[in-house]
Amino acid sequence: MTTVQLDARPDLETIREAYARIRPHIHRTPVMTCRALDAMAGAQLFFKCENFQKGGAFKARGATNAVLMLSEEIARRGVVTHSSGNHAAALSLAASFRGIKAYIVVPSNAPAPKVAAIKGYGGRITFCEPTLAARESTTARLMAEKEVYLIHPYNNHHVMAGQGTCALELLEQLQEGSAAPPDMILAPVGGGGLVSGTAIVAKSLHPQLKVIGCEPHGADDARRSKKSGKLIPQTNPKTIADGLRSSLGEKTFAVIRELVDDIVTVEEDEIVAAMRHVWERMKIIIEPSSAVPVAAALFHKISGMAGKRVGIILSGGNVDVDHLPFKISKPRRKAKR
Amino acid sequence: MTTVQLDARPDLETIREAYARIRPHIHRTPVMTCRALDAMAGAQLFFKCENFQKGGAFKARGATNAVLMLSEEIARRGVVTHSSGNHAAALSLAASFRGIKAYIVVPSNAPAPKVAAIKGYGGRITFCEPTLAARESTTARLMAEKEVYLIHPYNNHHVMAGQGTCALELLEQLQEGSAAPPDMILAPVGGGGLVSGTAIVAKSLHPQLKVIGCEPHGADDARRSKKSGKLIPQTNPKTIADGLRSSLGEKTFAVIRELVDDIVTVEEDEIVAAMRHVWERMKIIIEPSSAVPVAAALFHKISGMAGKRVGIILSGGNVDVDHLPFKISKPRRKAKR
Repeated sequence: MTTVQLDARPDLETIREAYARIRPHIHRTPVMTCRALDAMAGAQLFFKCENFQKGGAFKARGATNAVLMLSEEIARRGVVTHSSGNHAAALSLAASFRGIKAYIVVPSNAPAPKVAAIKGYGGRITFCEPTLAARESTTARLMAEKEVYLIHPYNNHHVMAGQGTCALELLEQLQEGSAAPPDMILAPVGGGGLVSGTAIVAKSLHPQLKVIGCEPHGADDARRSKKSGKLIPQTNPKTIADGLRSSLGEKTFAVIRELVDDIVTVEEDEIVAAMRHVWERMKIIIEPSSAVPVAAALFHKISGMAGKRVGIILSGGNVDVDHLPFKISKPRRKAKR
Repeated sequence: MTTVQLDARPDLETIREAYARIRPHIHRTPVMTCRALDAMAGAQLFFKCENFQKGGAFKARGATNAVLMLSEEIARRGVVTHSSGNHAAALSLAASFRGIKAYIVVPSNAPAPKVAAIKGYGGRITFCEPTLAARESTTARLMAEKEVYLIHPYNNHHVMAGQGTCALELLEQLQEGSAAPPDMILAPVGGGGLVSGTAIVAKSLHPQLKVIGCEPHGADDARRSKKSGKLIPQTNPKTIADGLRSSLGEKTFAVIRELVDDIVTVEEDEIVAAMRHVWERMKIIIEPSSAVPVAAALFHKISGMAGKRVGIILSGGNVDVDHLPFKISKPRRKAKR
């Protein structure tokens, strides 16, 4: 039986414990390399393939840790979140590992495949109007009526600790393959759960290892927050990288402010081009959010990267193959169908 | 220095030698599993991921073996083939491993990405009119003028031996993972190089292991040839699986007739659905030809497969991401762009 610990910011030890806790439930995802992309980047890239993670994204790590950390009493009543993205699927999965209920508040205009995925993992869906107010009020109603526990997608220390296990695993895998740790790790930044967990692990194990957060230019709240030293929420995000549209949380920002070395941004066409390069050269499917750090590497957004060993976290692979960003660029068929 | 051996049909020993010969140049591709696809197939599937092979397809194996088997005298003058597909890229790569020239005769209407890939691997392109007659006469002219050696994409015993190394590697990998060999191996059938090499390996190592060739219904010359006992050429193939449109060769058919247990066929919509399932659930990119044996498994075309351990060779991952078969099925945008 697990008990809820004090809500302290995770450290290396907490993240190691989280890893031991979630390990039986998650995949140890592979690290891939690609000479063609190395040549483009002018660096040696190590891709941590969380697109192969359960649920198709790293989110399974944090959600699983958070669910396993709940007391029996709380867990028995179930968990809730509002999302139609990777965290919703991950929380549904995590709840199924523990045999508890996951209530997912989903906007009524969510794409059918996303809804099907959540249901497929056993999540119980409550639809609401597609506004933030409706999502929050519907979630609050479920919390009041069913006394279910809210698991926030990133502004939660147990979630952050779970996401940190990805970097822990990457560093372990690189150590198995060769002696030297990487010089840098690049991670996408949405709410900041992944990059903050990554930074805690990286700086604890190798203080000289640089951690770079990568954002779309159209949703650059982390860059602006880091620069100004205070949390600036993201309003009106404009990016294809649907996983990176949210604002930082105060818990993730506290870590980003202190431990992340830099935040760089990339343009939309660079995200699509990077995604295409990974699909075409590596033959793996990544979603636009995952392509953001790849774009930062391929389009030379990071100073001092030349010739270095660079870990890149490919955060997820959930795309709608019927609606890809490539097809608009080069139509071959003349007539519409 | 290698010398040309007698042109005998490969056996297990020849294929083991081929494997040792090509091993320094090719990838040992991973074997992946997927519970979601297992559930659909009602069997335990082991996917041999030749989509991750150099050049994006198993063809690198056969081409490399054939090039390395040439005498110094022949190799010095270079090699030639006519193709715009995976063999052309593979032969260009194989020639580069030995530091010799590869001349590739390409129809003038070949898609630009395929031409770029061949050039990227160092192939020297000669364009010709898009007819079989023009391709053959252009190839003959190059053979006469430059005294270059023709390496056929499949009707060549050294190529067949090279393709057989894929099954050898798969069986080796499964043995490392668990004690039992698979009960069946499924491979796509185009010219028959892959399935014939596979059958020689499988039947030599485990006579009870079934080898099933999988074909599109619209290019089912292997099924008809196997059934009638004589080689029936494929005329007017109609399939999205562009790697499987060719006729068998007499060398590959001789093996297929004797050693392949059965040939099954799948429909076009089944190929597209299988390709979608692999993309969406496994997050890897496979080309339509690779989806043919997957379709045979998922749509229950093979009797006696229930509950069995089944190896599936994912032959390649070269697709044009701008022109995918999915996008037509479920348009979301109302207006044309």
